[in-house]
Amino acid sequence: MPGYTPGEQPREGEFIKLNTNENPYPPSPRVLEAIRAAANGEQLRKYPDPLGTTFRRTAGRMLGIDPDGILIGNGSDDILTIVTRACVPEGGVMASPSPSYLLYRTLAELQGANFRAVPFTAAWQLPEPWPVCEAHLTLVPNPNSPSGTTVSLPCLERLAGQLSGTLVLDEAYVDFAEANGLHLAAVGGKNILITRSLSKSYSLAGVRFGFAVGEPALVRELVKVKDSYNCDVLSLAAATAALEDQQYLRTTRTRILATRARLTGALERLGFAVTPSQANFVWCRRGDRPVKPLYEELKKRMILIRYMHYEGYGDGLRISVGSDAEIDRLLEELVRLL
Amino acid sequence: MPGYTPGEQPREGEFIKLNTNENPYPPSPRVLEAIRAAANGEQLRKYPDPLGTTFRRTAGRMLGIDPDGILIGNGSDDILTIVTRACVPEGGVMASPSPSYLLYRTLAELQGANFRAVPFTAAWQLPEPWPVCEAHLTLVPNPNSPSGTTVSLPCLERLAGQLSGTLVLDEAYVDFAEANGLHLAAVGGKNILITRSLSKSYSLAGVRFGFAVGEPALVRELVKVKDSYNCDVLSLAAATAALEDQQYLRTTRTRILATRARLTGALERLGFAVTPSQANFVWCRRGDRPVKPLYEELKKRMILIRYMHYEGYGDGLRISVGSDAEIDRLLEELVRLL
Repeated sequence: MPGYTPGEQPREGEFIKLNTNENPYPPSPRVLEAIRAAANGEQLRKYPDPLGTTFRRTAGRMLGIDPDGILIGNGSDDILTIVTRACVPEGGVMASPSPSYLLYRTLAELQGANFRAVPFTAAWQLPEPWPVCEAHLTLVPNPNSPSGTTVSLPCLERLAGQLSGTLVLDEAYVDFAEANGLHLAAVGGKNILITRSLSKSYSLAGVRFGFAVGEPALVRELVKVKDSYNCDVLSLAAATAALEDQQYLRTTRTRILATRARLTGALERLGFAVTPSQANFVWCRRGDRPVKPLYEELKKRMILIRYMHYEGYGDGLRISVGSDAEIDRLLEELVRLL
Repeated sequence: MPGYTPGEQPREGEFIKLNTNENPYPPSPRVLEAIRAAANGEQLRKYPDPLGTTFRRTAGRMLGIDPDGILIGNGSDDILTIVTRACVPEGGVMASPSPSYLLYRTLAELQGANFRAVPFTAAWQLPEPWPVCEAHLTLVPNPNSPSGTTVSLPCLERLAGQLSGTLVLDEAYVDFAEANGLHLAAVGGKNILITRSLSKSYSLAGVRFGFAVGEPALVRELVKVKDSYNCDVLSLAAATAALEDQQYLRTTRTRILATRARLTGALERLGFAVTPSQANFVWCRRGDRPVKPLYEELKKRMILIRYMHYEGYGDGLRISVGSDAEIDRLLEELVRLL
């Protein structure tokens, strides 16, 4: 099998990176302080707290949820791996709407499971009734990538009611959306798990930290599957400080949403069909010309965006919402190319 | 299933921790500098290098091996999980000498595999011929825990020649031993993988970093199984700086080996049967009285050591080699208790 290919990460040169949905702004200054404070010999030489108790208490308080219903992960990809291993037997079934996060299929392949991709409707909604209710694990990213769209919470609640297995609501991008499904973890019982990432909204892709929210009984089972010490003292300190600074999150979020609106309008004026986005990226296509050459030409001009092609759906460009200056440069080049 | 139970990590109070084989000395000052330098907004907001290229180049240079034959891991437990998932099908067979690292059995259970524990000989050597040559994965810790003993390298080479599956030589404690098996990775082809941890000898249990050494072709397959971004920018920076400072490693190693010799002698004078150790802990037993009460009494006196009981073998105490002051306190209390 080929494995999952992450987005390009150029190590050198002066690329403008609008391809992996990183936050253009640095993390809260309190995060940097927390890392420096934790980087002392005494904490580094000892094993970290396997359960991340301090982080869980903070996250519980900030999000209004039970700390015992929180699972810590080395990025939300770690959580997705843990859930897959816990819920899906070899030869089992995993399902997801499509097009969406390509890693889901890779996780199924690694687990020796069968993957069922269920096409979204033309409006990026889930077909009702959902056709694969028997899946051991169903993964729904909300907001979705590459579309940036969301499925309504009542629809997700109906879906959870139909499934015999576990539903993962992958909320990696939810801090950029209008609503989130955190309350579903409480109503869904052992059937629903919400996953969150600190990579995007908290500008911490480099430290690898994600978490999941679900019934404490479900979390206790997942703890058995995770590596004992899956999160290190520095990422735990960083994540705790990041969640404590909600004001900083609101400020950068507001800036990103303003840039997203401006980018969307400008792309539309350039002739792109842009899907209204609830995430920190936009998905755009056009009928009048192929878009892959645009990706290639931008790359030559030191601007990386993501060209994506999905079988049975077609292709398009996914553009991360960078800083205003980065987006200005992108638009300048696009005007020249079109 | 019950899951793996890591050693106790008291969060508060003034315990002397001699139970999880942490290094009593802080990491190299260059590690702290490297973490502080990497803790900047620009590096934290971006995804890390999935392959840890800078670390691999440094480790390759320091250890005299091909960087393409190095796999990075979020602790060597992460590596063990990756190898298990890559090599062992559900219903497959995993084998290990026993008593050894308890996690191996847990990994087999998580994978839905059958675990075969092969008793060490009375001298802590492998039985020859090895009785489970058909295992998909065979794990040999060298030095072993809890015994601190090593198996000779020619014996391991003979073992690798007999096995149809992959042999993992778990060298988490090897920096405290007289010899290591790194050259076996080159002669063993796709059949042998050596794993290393920075938790013990480099005093970095808190940052979670380990790596594996094997044939580049084997490493390329394992990369497909690991999470794309399994190591974060801070642990990569810390690990790279740690490996660069080999002088610091030699200095702390020398101190720990001197304390180990002193601890061994003192325990023997107190009537313990101490297994000669090549690791940063010692394994001791006694025939004249049960040892569990000693563990319990020491705990009441704020000293944590590890009481271990293995079915079919019996019990004993595993004591980490702490600082001289910590070992003095331990011996003082033991004199009172015996």
